[in-house]
Order: sequence, then C-alpha cells, then structure tokens
Amino acid sequence: MEEVDNKQVIFKGYIERPPKETDMEIKVSKIKLRAPKGSGAILVKNLYLSCDPFMRGRMRDFQGSYIPPFVPGQALEGFGVYKVIDSENSDFKPGDLFSGLTGWEEYSLICRPQQFRKIQPDNIPLSYHVGLLGMPGFTAYVGFFEVCSPKKGEYVFVSAASGAVGQLVGQLAKLHGCHVVGSAGTSQKVDLIKNKLGFDEAFNYKEELDLDATLKRYFPQGIDIYFDNVGGEMLDAALLNMRINGRIAVCGAVSQQSLSKPQGIHNLFSLIIKSIKMQGFLQHNYLHLYPRFIEHVISYYKQGKIFYIEDMNEGLESAPAALAGLFSGKNVGKQVIRVASE
Amino acid sequence: MEEVDNKQVIFKGYIERPPKETDMEIKVSKIKLRAPKGSGAILVKNLYLSCDPFMRGRMRDFQGSYIPPFVPGQALEGFGVYKVIDSENSDFKPGDLFSGLTGWEEYSLICRPQQFRKIQPDNIPLSYHVGLLGMPGFTAYVGFFEVCSPKKGEYVFVSAASGAVGQLVGQLAKLHGCHVVGSAGTSQKVDLIKNKLGFDEAFNYKEELDLDATLKRYFPQGIDIYFDNVGGEMLDAALLNMRINGRIAVCGAVSQQSLSKPQGIHNLFSLIIKSIKMQGFLQHNYLHLYPRFIEHVISYYKQGKIFYIEDMNEGLESAPAALAGLFSGKNVGKQVIRVASE
Repeated sequence: MEEVDNKQVIFKGYIERPPKETDMEIKVSKIKLRAPKGSGAILVKNLYLSCDPFMRGRMRDFQGSYIPPFVPGQALEGFGVYKVIDSENSDFKPGDLFSGLTGWEEYSLICRPQQFRKIQPDNIPLSYHVGLLGMPGFTAYVGFFEVCSPKKGEYVFVSAASGAVGQLVGQLAKLHGCHVVGSAGTSQKVDLIKNKLGFDEAFNYKEELDLDATLKRYFPQGIDIYFDNVGGEMLDAALLNMRINGRIAVCGAVSQQSLSKPQGIHNLFSLIIKSIKMQGFLQHNYLHLYPRFIEHVISYYKQGKIFYIEDMNEGLESAPAALAGLFSGKNVGKQVIRVASE
Repeated sequence: MEEVDNKQVIFKGYIERPPKETDMEIKVSKIKLRAPKGSGAILVKNLYLSCDPFMRGRMRDFQGSYIPPFVPGQALEGFGVYKVIDSENSDFKPGDLFSGLTGWEEYSLICRPQQFRKIQPDNIPLSYHVGLLGMPGFTAYVGFFEVCSPKKGEYVFVSAASGAVGQLVGQLAKLHGCHVVGSAGTSQKVDLIKNKLGFDEAFNYKEELDLDATLKRYFPQGIDIYFDNVGGEMLDAALLNMRINGRIAVCGAVSQQSLSKPQGIHNLFSLIIKSIKMQGFLQHNYLHLYPRFIEHVISYYKQGKIFYIEDMNEGLESAPAALAGLFSGKNVGKQVIRVASE
C-alpha cells in the first residue's frame, strides 16, 4: 500500500518554562493508512486537536506526574476528534468518529486507544467533544459539583472565567442558583463573561491594583467557593476572602506556568481559622460520573441554557502558536485546532 | 460576704508576634465567692489551665476569626478544669467538676458557661480533661479520622509529633494499622515519640538540612496522610512527597507564629498533579462525634494502649512563661498549669 504525507507537530525537547512556538516544529513524514494486521491498533485521521494547559507538564522531564512526558523528536499528543480509517480492533470501525488521546499530526496510528469515546451523530459541533463535552467540560462539572459541593445561594468566584473550564463552571453555578463572579485578563473576555456567559459580575484582574480589595468589593459577604484556575496572587487574595467552611477547587495554576519557581502562597492560615477545604483533583478519577455529566450538559445545551466559546485555529501549522498562546491568555475561550474537515 | 484575693494573669495589650512572658502580668484583685442571685452565672475555683497555641490568635487585634480577641487589662481566657463553688444555674452544683472555657485566675465568675463538660468521677487524671480528653485530643481524633479518612497500611506523617495534638494522632494512626513517622525539635522529644508513643520512626527536623530529602528517606513510597501542625518549610517539603490522593489536615502553623508575614508555600502544584485534599478544620464543628471519641479514647487509655505526655507547671505565676514557651517548643507534651489542688 502506498504511503501518504503526514504533517506532524514535533516536540523538540524538554523545557522548564512555558512553551514557545519554537519548542515545536512542523515536519512531514510518510505513513501507510493501514493498521498492522493483528495488532489491535487503529489508523485514524485527526479532525480537531485540543490545546490544553496540562500539556505543558508533559514538556518537562519529570516522571512523577499522572501522565508521562512527551518524547523529544516525536509528535505531541493530546485530546482530539478523529475518524477511523482502518482498524484491527473490533471496538472501532472505519468511518466511526471518536474523541480521545491522539497525535498532533494529520494521521495517527494508535496502538492502545486511550480515554476514547465514540461520537454519536448529533447536532452538537464535533469540536465540542474536546471542550464542552470533553476533558475541560467534565473537569468543570466534577470540580464544581464533586469537589465544591455547592449550595443554592452561595457566593462563587471563578478565575480564568472565559477559559475552557471556567466558562462552564460559572454557567453551571448560575444554573445551580449561585451568585457568580469571574475574572479574566482582557476587557473583551470580561464582556463575554458578563454578557454571553451570564455571570453576575466579572472583572479584568490586570486593571486591579489590590486583588484583596477587589474581591472585597465583589464579595462583601465573602466567597463560599473559589474555583481556582490560576494560583498565585489571586489564590492568596481569595484565601483572605473565603467564608467559614469555604471550598477551593484547585484546578490549575496557569499564572505560575511562566515562572521557574512558583510564587509563594502566604495566606494558608485561612484554611485553619475558617475551616476551608482546598482540593486538587483530576477528572479521570470521576469517570463513573461521565454519563450523568453528558446527559445534563447536552440537555442544557439543547435548551440554550449553556454556551461554549471556542477559539478555533485553522491547520496543524497554527498549532504551536496556539498552544504557546494559552500561557499568555491569547486564546478567547477553548483553544482548538481544526486539522481537517470530516 | 467577705471578698478573697484572686490572683489573675492579665493580658496587657495586642501583639503581632508570638507572645512573650512580659505580654502578661500577674495581678491580685478581690472577688466574692458568690454568683449574683438570679444571674444564671456560676462562681468556680480553677484547678488546671491549658496553654494552647490557638490562644495566640486571641492576642491579635483581629475580629475575623472564629473566636474574639482577648480584652486588654482583663484576665486571659482558655480551657480549664474547674470546681463549682457557687451556682445560680441549675446545670451546675457546688462541688461539681467541669472542663470548659474559664479565666486565667484562681476564681472565675462565669456568666455564660461555654464548651463545658461535666467531669464524672473516674480514675483518669483531672488535667487530661483539657488534653487527651479535651480540645487537643478531640482535634487529633476528628482531624485524623474525619479529615484524613485513613486506611490501614497507609503512610502517615505527623509534625510536632510530641505535642498536645500530634502525640495522639500518631498513636491513633498506629492503632489503625498505619505506618507512622513523627518530627519534633529536640532529641528528647524524638526519643519519646519512638519509645513512649510507639511511632515507627521519628526525626529531629533541626538536624536535617534538606527536609525534602529527609522525607524521601523516611517515606520512600511517599506519604498518604500528612497531619500538619507546623506549616512553613515542612509543609512545602511534605507537598513534594505526597502520594496520589493524599490528604493533608491543616491543624496548625506553629512554625509561622514567630513571623509577621508567613513564609510562602511554593509547592501547591502538587495538589493538582496528585489530587491532594488539604483541609483546615475546627474541632467544634464535629461535636456530634464527641461521645464516640470519649468512648474510644477512654477505652484505649484504660487498656494501656494510649499514653499522654503532659508538661505540668505549678502555679498561676508560671503561666505566662509556659504560654510563651509553646512558640519556641519549650514544652514537652501537653502544656498545663496546675492552679490549685482539688
């Protein structure tokens, strides 16, 4: 069988700072559009690829995390939507669409498909399967409902509130009857958070000189739930403004990604005097809740009660810049790469 | 009715550093050994007073905590064991013994008795009602069982492990089938932790240059539960050594008490990559569990399965130095003041 060109985004080598476009390179290799006989593998065509902040962790030479680092010289890996071209695995049929971990390339040979889900024909945009209905959406759902145990009427603060996770957290909190305030880093994002996503309030943290005072202004009664996507100074300020029995879901620390040594958090004494729970979590420990999540979120989406903002880049060539852009907040909403049309 | 002398430990004024002996002064005032008619108050003779690190919080001019600050010019207040002398409250009879909040003085008029518990005649030392069976013991119990959700065979690390709380945490963890290591600041304490309290291992943190390396040595498999009584550098090192799904009970930050601005904690990213729960808690939110705690701990104590180390000072005059000594680790075990014999 003939080989075809396969454009790839290659990981050049380990880094100890946030990724730059030049840490990746585009390369064209050759691939046979065939899964080896008896291998159990599948050969897929990638349609959408997801840019997620957790991918930075795989660009470090550190084995202690829940997922191994990338291999220098090989294509990056991430969540994507793909179409099966050839299959030696009875769970996958040519023509079927799946979301799951795949390579940052046009075609991937996937030997042991991971975290894959079959996509049923539906009138939901295909790319949403790596966003609203994928890892970020599920992270928002389990982080908010399982880690934060929200009650109606509680005061909820969400940082990076227009991001892939934050935008859904805030909307779920509103639907749950909470008072919700979000922060972001541009006035365009603040506008989206208030006017498109329906948060009660939003502010641009870059325009605030004293985050403690800012939070006191937006939360005169204090914060019951802080869904933390950024860490750093915002976390420290939120700690000072939590209410008794408050909960902090620690979902990301994107503000710390640009530093080689993370900033110190100084206000942990609040945990003691206010009986606060602060919890890190990984969505893949809650997979038993995935069916319930899908049912709820699809229902809300079809009723027009939930929106999902995407930042869509065209073509694999745009992927390195899009991934790097996450760490300076360049993306507006969930960052996705369209690799090919169906 | 005649008045008698009443020796008191007076709080001189608010401070922003750990207490010194000179922040308190001994004064003798006069008191009638009578509860005012119809007042609902009780007049008590104090037998034992408890020195607890949380009292430092009440020496600050800060209203946002769970308990109000002390009033300058008046006696300090803390947990104690007292005998009722006169009562205008039907729950209290002269001659009865109680533990609860009382003044740092020989006799106290208590208008609204708080957190009091009647002491039944028993062969347990009276002073244990402010230690093993009091707030510190109950803090150990709910912190370990409710906040840390321990499982048999798990790896448990306790800092300030010979202290009022830590010594019971470690013994409960051993009885629960955990592997337990403690840290303390003198070789005498390390010896007690290993040989009297029966921890598997203990170390003197002041002799260690690199706490991360130390913890890796004592926990080659990592830490499932860290019962944190100290905060600061030890917490930062523990964060690096936690296992997936680890739990950190944040019980105190005594290492930070001597600093005006607390040290930064830099390793909170561990919460995310290892799904760690870090929780502050206050024992008084778990009072429904108090009867179960008393039953368990008294039973263990009577079977000789639990020891409780006390550091007993004689006389109210010794109280200011004893309280100040907590913050430099001068006490060996639970610090108590004997004010009077029964």
